Amino acid sequence: MTRIPRIRLRKPYLILLGDEHDPINAKTGFGIVHWRRADVAGQLRAPGAAVDLGVPDLGIDAAADDGVGSLVVGVAPVGGAVPAAWWDVMVDAARAGLDIVAGLHTKLNDNPALVEVAGAHDVRLVDVRVPPRNLPVGTGKKRTGRRLLTVGTDCAIGKKYTALGIDSAFADAGIDSTFRATGQTGILIAGEGMPIDAVVADFIAGAAEVLSPDNEPGHWDVIEGQGSLFHPAYSGVSLGLLHGSQPDAFVVCHDATRECLSDWEHFALPSITECIALHERVARRTNPAACCVGIAVNTSTLPVRKRSAYLEALAAEHGVPAVDPLIDGCSDIVAYVRKTFG
Amino acid sequence: MTRIPRIRLRKPYLILLGDEHDPINAKTGFGIVHWRRADVAGQLRAPGAAVDLGVPDLGIDAAADDGVGSLVVGVAPVGGAVPAAWWDVMVDAARAGLDIVAGLHTKLNDNPALVEVAGAHDVRLVDVRVPPRNLPVGTGKKRTGRRLLTVGTDCAIGKKYTALGIDSAFADAGIDSTFRATGQTGILIAGEGMPIDAVVADFIAGAAEVLSPDNEPGHWDVIEGQGSLFHPAYSGVSLGLLHGSQPDAFVVCHDATRECLSDWEHFALPSITECIALHERVARRTNPAACCVGIAVNTSTLPVRKRSAYLEALAAEHGVPAVDPLIDGCSDIVAYVRKTFG
Repeated sequence: MTRIPRIRLRKPYLILLGDEHDPINAKTGFGIVHWRRADVAGQLRAPGAAVDLGVPDLGIDAAADDGVGSLVVGVAPVGGAVPAAWWDVMVDAARAGLDIVAGLHTKLNDNPALVEVAGAHDVRLVDVRVPPRNLPVGTGKKRTGRRLLTVGTDCAIGKKYTALGIDSAFADAGIDSTFRATGQTGILIAGEGMPIDAVVADFIAGAAEVLSPDNEPGHWDVIEGQGSLFHPAYSGVSLGLLHGSQPDAFVVCHDATRECLSDWEHFALPSITECIALHERVARRTNPAACCVGIAVNTSTLPVRKRSAYLEALAAEHGVPAVDPLIDGCSDIVAYVRKTFG
Repeated sequence: MTRIPRIRLRKPYLILLGDEHDPINAKTGFGIVHWRRADVAGQLRAPGAAVDLGVPDLGIDAAADDGVGSLVVGVAPVGGAVPAAWWDVMVDAARAGLDIVAGLHTKLNDNPALVEVAGAHDVRLVDVRVPPRNLPVGTGKKRTGRRLLTVGTDCAIGKKYTALGIDSAFADAGIDSTFRATGQTGILIAGEGMPIDAVVADFIAGAAEVLSPDNEPGHWDVIEGQGSLFHPAYSGVSLGLLHGSQPDAFVVCHDATRECLSDWEHFALPSITECIALHERVARRTNPAACCVGIAVNTSTLPVRKRSAYLEALAAEHGVPAVDPLIDGCSDIVAYVRKTFG
């Protein structure tokens, strides 16, 4: 049987940000710092770069002297290609004895110069976004245990944060659960997972089935969503993941003030109502009982005084808890899940 | 810019069927025989095999003597893996001087024994299901020209036949059109196309955009659908293809008596009403004017006397032409398209 890929990284990490100005593109860096702060020694930024993870700036030589284990590429640009200028930085880091870790579509191990230097200096090139071989096609067969999937009105809108937050809240409530990572950042945080967007198209649902296997009846897999059913580039990934995950419950992730898809500005964000309705409709193909159990909203761009009223109105309209997972945590959602599923 | 992959095959073909008993799994063989009969010299079957393409049975030595150019694998099993016993047949054929052609997920060029024999006998190993490198992610931007996509209530339900039939009917009506292949059989028939189900998940919609580029305002791309939005294994492919194709029009393919998904018997076929409604709803994300322009049904399992009434009732219920493309052709659908789009 195909297993969930596991990774082992040398800690602590130096996060490579290059000249990235858009925090949304630096979500890998932010995610690792937020959920694994103790593992991060610092960040490596080009002069004048705007993105700041709030950790010490550190050069490669200083990092090597400090015993840093890995240089982790902290940026996920559109399409996944590594900017040409960064290869030099990675070669320098490998020469200084650091492992190089990335989760981009362009593979570290496909760069001959980097492979040569890594070999000469006995460091590892770890491509996180490599799916296992011999994935099965989806069966659609019902599995034991419970599953919750985070979905969204857009990409980069909090699906990973929300899943990690719900997994923590399950632990706080004494409910057995596992965070199931589907993207590079989630995999770096969890140490295992399925890079679902790197899987060959025919095997998306099958890969999702491998990621959340049969489990104890009371156990919850909390699955990190990817993309959006409403996204013109990534909707296929989202639907395959939804059908393969066969979630009992899903949580809609949203941004309080975002009006258009990030980087696809000619597409309006769908409404939360539309998002819940479409997910219920298609999710029920593989799990007839699938239902929405919460709304997780990034409210950081709202005036503070409007936050509570906004979330209360959402909760009242949709009949499920509405929270900002970074501010409120996810215990309200877990309480609702408990009430609904016993 | 990424181009649509073209292939050049040595004709005529010997179709390899092995011991396949299920005609649905032999759809590659049937498709090539139906649409390119003049290119097929014969079929190679294991003793006792039930599938018969209606062409002469031919052994490898006889085929080589007759000047056959290529052995084409004519079977598409679930998951795409080549049955182990067939490799020997392919090695024999390569030794006899035939090119080997396949469109399976398992690559001919990944089989060392076959690669060695092919090199020694100067024959080609042609893997049809290899997507181009450097595919872009989808942009969702509106393209010029018109597009029609065939969709379905299941896999293997006539989407390719219907697309080829509509393309022919466009030609008969003097309307400029191009058949756009998305699967191995379609690519073998057309000589070019995009193996959409072999693309990495993040690039499905982008690959679909590459497949049907900007065109003349009156030109129709007739795009071969893949899978089904209702399929537990392949829905991701279908949604990515739908969003990337941004069709103006779609045709629902169906089987008059099939009750469950082929090979996924625990899933009922959706109704045509449900199928039209879901496709309209999601297709309008990238083309707000997308609409259903016809229903194409395989009626071969209906009693002949019930055929007409069945199709007339469907047409009346849904307000679009309903045809069996193999019996009626697709001129009614093209006439409806003409009326609707001018």
